Amino acid sequence: MEVNQILHMNKGDGKTSYSQNSQVQGKILSVAKPIIHEAVLEILISNNIESMGIADLGCSSGPNTFLPISYIMDAIHAKRSSLGLQLSPSSTTEFRVYLNDLFSNDFNTIFMSLPAFYNNLKQEKGPEFGSVFVSAVPGSFHGRLFPAKTLHFVHSSCSIHWLSRVPPALSKTPAEAAGSALNRGKIYISKTSPQCVLDAYSLQFHEDFSSFLKSRAEEVVGGGRMVLSLIGRPSSDPTTRESCDHIICYIFICIWVQGLIEEGKVDAFNIPYYAPCAEELKLEVQKEGSFVMDRVEAFEIDRDAGGGESDDMVASGQRVAKSIRVVAESMLESHFGKDIIDHLFQKYAELLGIHLSKFRTKYTSLVISVIRKQ
Amino acid sequence: MEVNQILHMNKGDGKTSYSQNSQVQGKILSVAKPIIHEAVLEILISNNIESMGIADLGCSSGPNTFLPISYIMDAIHAKRSSLGLQLSPSSTTEFRVYLNDLFSNDFNTIFMSLPAFYNNLKQEKGPEFGSVFVSAVPGSFHGRLFPAKTLHFVHSSCSIHWLSRVPPALSKTPAEAAGSALNRGKIYISKTSPQCVLDAYSLQFHEDFSSFLKSRAEEVVGGGRMVLSLIGRPSSDPTTRESCDHIICYIFICIWVQGLIEEGKVDAFNIPYYAPCAEELKLEVQKEGSFVMDRVEAFEIDRDAGGGESDDMVASGQRVAKSIRVVAESMLESHFGKDIIDHLFQKYAELLGIHLSKFRTKYTSLVISVIRKQ
Repeated sequence: MEVNQILHMNKGDGKTSYSQNSQVQGKILSVAKPIIHEAVLEILISNNIESMGIADLGCSSGPNTFLPISYIMDAIHAKRSSLGLQLSPSSTTEFRVYLNDLFSNDFNTIFMSLPAFYNNLKQEKGPEFGSVFVSAVPGSFHGRLFPAKTLHFVHSSCSIHWLSRVPPALSKTPAEAAGSALNRGKIYISKTSPQCVLDAYSLQFHEDFSSFLKSRAEEVVGGGRMVLSLIGRPSSDPTTRESCDHIICYIFICIWVQGLIEEGKVDAFNIPYYAPCAEELKLEVQKEGSFVMDRVEAFEIDRDAGGGESDDMVASGQRVAKSIRVVAESMLESHFGKDIIDHLFQKYAELLGIHLSKFRTKYTSLVISVIRKQ
Repeated sequence: MEVNQILHMNKGDGKTSYSQNSQVQGKILSVAKPIIHEAVLEILISNNIESMGIADLGCSSGPNTFLPISYIMDAIHAKRSSLGLQLSPSSTTEFRVYLNDLFSNDFNTIFMSLPAFYNNLKQEKGPEFGSVFVSAVPGSFHGRLFPAKTLHFVHSSCSIHWLSRVPPALSKTPAEAAGSALNRGKIYISKTSPQCVLDAYSLQFHEDFSSFLKSRAEEVVGGGRMVLSLIGRPSSDPTTRESCDHIICYIFICIWVQGLIEEGKVDAFNIPYYAPCAEELKLEVQKEGSFVMDRVEAFEIDRDAGGGESDDMVASGQRVAKSIRVVAESMLESHFGKDIIDHLFQKYAELLGIHLSKFRTKYTSLVISVIRKQ
């Protein structure tokens, strides 16, 4: 089954919806805010743009969906206001906003919030701000999404760490996979480093990020910019605890599932996900050649973004388990079946509570800002 | 409540979904096909377009959604093939396709069909055809939807007869409405012509169609074209049987409902719908002044588009009732409540069967083709 069909955030706004459990993604967005702000102003200062094309890639559907667009509009409005309500620093009067995610994303829910978004914009920024046209562009950002040279600013958060597929070497039948005596779970559980699995994931990421950059290079005008946030590794060595920690969340699931279902299915379960280090991003941007790296930043993000000062690790385990569930459920369900899910995540939250009481580990969010060469 | 919130086709693909009961709309589309074909080729011959902007306004969600776009792509491909597979009659290499409908439209279902649409296009037309980028632009076409001068061809079918609101004079409280001693139902049931109600509807249509034309005039490039199909009246006199017949479908509902619920609610129920005659369309295009009328055609469409040669009026009544239900249910439900709907449409189908056995009435579809002045 294609990644497109199995990779989607949990829909709706119930207890186990992505919409109700995307605080971590919101936090990752908020630390990137000043970098988005800076990049947008640089574009307006350096270019004379009448109609500005803005794309958010992997917009999902929830309380964070309109945040990046709001950040961008706020940055422009603040700058104009500081210059005495003139239309400077550019005479931009039209903003074309494109929201992208996979075909299976819940765009209906986004569209129901759109009238309120338009109204707020009008009330907060006044009619002189310019016209904003929001549209949805569904599809995979690993290929072309937009006509040539139509975008000035591209943003993406919490999305580029998703691969276009499980590396082919690992998506064989269980028997074949067993032939290589490896799966991702085993890498981290055993703490050994089977180099060929790591290489397969790394290769897939580089292939995907390269095609991402190539596609955007066609779509972004010279002088245009991209700010991309993604889950990364703090060090270049992928076998350290910090590097593999995020994956452990998933691996715990696998361990538990082993007690519930046949082991072959667990062996064959691989997630199309890779957390690169900053060096890998720099290298790929340089290699592809269409963009210049302007900034690279790393931030530590609390795994339990919904938690307060309390040390209640049971509640914390439940919150973190839920934040993983809303992202991973569709993949787990498609592989292991629907019946197992509730019980699985109940046990998973317990294990996670114990784990978090020992290791107060964090996510690493990498943010890069790049400029399209002229 | 705003029209936006209550006017939507029945979702999903069940027995009473729009998707399963939109044969009439499909028929209306197919009679307009040659006119769409002609207009598209005229655009390509008269303009040198690298990136062609195409919008379908009121695309809904069902088997007809991709039809207009397919017609357009087929026309271009056939012309190119007849010229020896050259990229003439123009060197268009990018097609920007915008699907529009109200915020509440089921775009998720459209997007799930999009990969298949892209695949078919590639297989049928080959990689030389050019890149097609499909996006969704939700909102009301009575206002601006697109940036200035970005569209070359605009299509709309079965949508412009929907008004932006019930005429204000008729959307008062039941008591106030009763004060004018009028509602649309009564016009047709009594066969009298209370001029002020007709005037209110006519005025609302002219106001809406004028703002439609004004908005499109901003968005369509000089030499660009629009083909618009809508339910119309065959004669300019709105009181003849043929003119009011479509409305009778709804009015029967009202009559029946009168036996089930309080009469005040029936009095206050008005549908934001108006079927103009060809003269009214011509007049408004001329008055607005941005477009030149190229063609006006009228077609008769069988009310029972799903029917065969059989004379089974019971089955016919059920089919026609269903085709009305999928369009009107959201409005009826919002006004009269959910509980009444099944029973209502069962009785309605019976009445319709009797009606159709006496009068083999048809819809009138008006199709106009207009050109944006340079």
